[in-house]
Amino acid sequence: MLTEKEIKELMKKGRQIMHPIEDYDKDYKTDQELKKPQPPLVKAAMCETSIALPMNFEDLYIDNDFLHVINSRQSHRVFTQEKMSLLELSYLLWCSQGVKEIRGKSYATLRTVPGGGARHPFEVYMTIQNVEGLSNGYYHYLPMKHRIECLKEKEELKGFISESLEGQIWAAKANVVFYYSFVCYRAEWRYGIYAHRMNMADAGHVTENVYLSATSIGLGGCAIGAVVGSLCDKEFGLDGEEEFVFYAMPVGTISVKDKDREKDFYKFVEEEGL
Amino acid sequence: MLTEKEIKELMKKGRQIMHPIEDYDKDYKTDQELKKPQPPLVKAAMCETSIALPMNFEDLYIDNDFLHVINSRQSHRVFTQEKMSLLELSYLLWCSQGVKEIRGKSYATLRTVPGGGARHPFEVYMTIQNVEGLSNGYYHYLPMKHRIECLKEKEELKGFISESLEGQIWAAKANVVFYYSFVCYRAEWRYGIYAHRMNMADAGHVTENVYLSATSIGLGGCAIGAVVGSLCDKEFGLDGEEEFVFYAMPVGTISVKDKDREKDFYKFVEEEGL
Repeated sequence: MLTEKEIKELMKKGRQIMHPIEDYDKDYKTDQELKKPQPPLVKAAMCETSIALPMNFEDLYIDNDFLHVINSRQSHRVFTQEKMSLLELSYLLWCSQGVKEIRGKSYATLRTVPGGGARHPFEVYMTIQNVEGLSNGYYHYLPMKHRIECLKEKEELKGFISESLEGQIWAAKANVVFYYSFVCYRAEWRYGIYAHRMNMADAGHVTENVYLSATSIGLGGCAIGAVVGSLCDKEFGLDGEEEFVFYAMPVGTISVKDKDREKDFYKFVEEEGL
Repeated sequence: MLTEKEIKELMKKGRQIMHPIEDYDKDYKTDQELKKPQPPLVKAAMCETSIALPMNFEDLYIDNDFLHVINSRQSHRVFTQEKMSLLELSYLLWCSQGVKEIRGKSYATLRTVPGGGARHPFEVYMTIQNVEGLSNGYYHYLPMKHRIECLKEKEELKGFISESLEGQIWAAKANVVFYYSFVCYRAEWRYGIYAHRMNMADAGHVTENVYLSATSIGLGGCAIGAVVGSLCDKEFGLDGEEEFVFYAMPVGTISVKDKDREKDFYKFVEEEGL
């Protein structure tokens, strides 16, 4: 049982995360400043084969009223378990992590999301179920080629999804759960001890684009911070030190008919008269 | 001068920010769980008068090709210092912090951006210069009424802007700099010691909507983590403990003609052959 004093200490430590970092040391130099070699811009392929993602986004029905997309975005936790098309999955990945351009010879990837110093230190792993043309299983996104690779076929994913998200069983019906890992040195090479705080904001840029792009094609989802990192790392084969899962977002097919069921997630507001 | 060992410790502490938080204590209860009274959803007005923001967004020229907005978003640090309209400023504020609905009697604000548990623990302060109908000065956004209040008229803002952003003088030409504060207890009431990490991701949701909405109406900007919080707190009258500035984003008018000048910000890539 935490004591009052321990809680106070943890709270103070927590607030410290939000505070802009003062310079610890004017003489401190990051590895980039020390001219140390730069780490790879993306993780190498983990499998021998990969699957091309279609780019014919003009065939999607995209809500092209920008303000309507902004205004109608909301959290969705009730999924209908209809099939998602490969083109829809491709569109979500493109809008949230797609590589538009390379800066310099291989200095940085310019992506569809902003990232501090264009470091883009994230990798995307996925559970995929009920997506057109794909076996159910674990997948990894290859942003340089806009392809995905299947790490492991696995018919039944619901147990893992729910357990990996601290028991949030609603997520187990999502066609895709994006699990985001942090590849530490990719950001630390440039920003050193100052890297981490802003990487959480960068992660928010990514999931906001997932929210909006999903909304624009009639899909729904909800970002999740309550991730059991160690379990995800084990399943996706990450070392948990230099690369680890830290954030997730399930996305699935939705129906306007489920609007009332969505309200069940905050029934307590009414019950408690808040 | 930091020792190797100290750097290692700071790096470890930094990575800890990114790691999902394990349960410190299963018996720990947040103030919401303890049924303590909820803090206000927004900060009260700080001035006696405020200025209505226009909502006739249909009069803006909005890029309604959603994917084009996603694909053309980029960082902009070269501003032309033309006038920004009040409607444009209103649109940026609406798209990034606008209140769409209240949940329950006064349980939560539902906004145009997602936020963990709909806590929305941020306040928006601004330096405004060269915006139609407004005196130059410091402002505060009132999201419940979609109004702004002028905290202090101040003709010359360039010195403060540059100093508050660790000397990034390019930002001093922005028509508006959004300075985001964190009102700690608004998030801590619900999430307690687990609140802070995800609030940084929530801040990323906000700035991504600034990026996209600015792009959609031909404006540009760049989010900034290097903020001198203490200086901002002093100028905006915040206590620096229960509320403090942690993040900023300048937005201004831009021109395609400045594309080459934008490249000056990463000339080192070519020079160093990266």
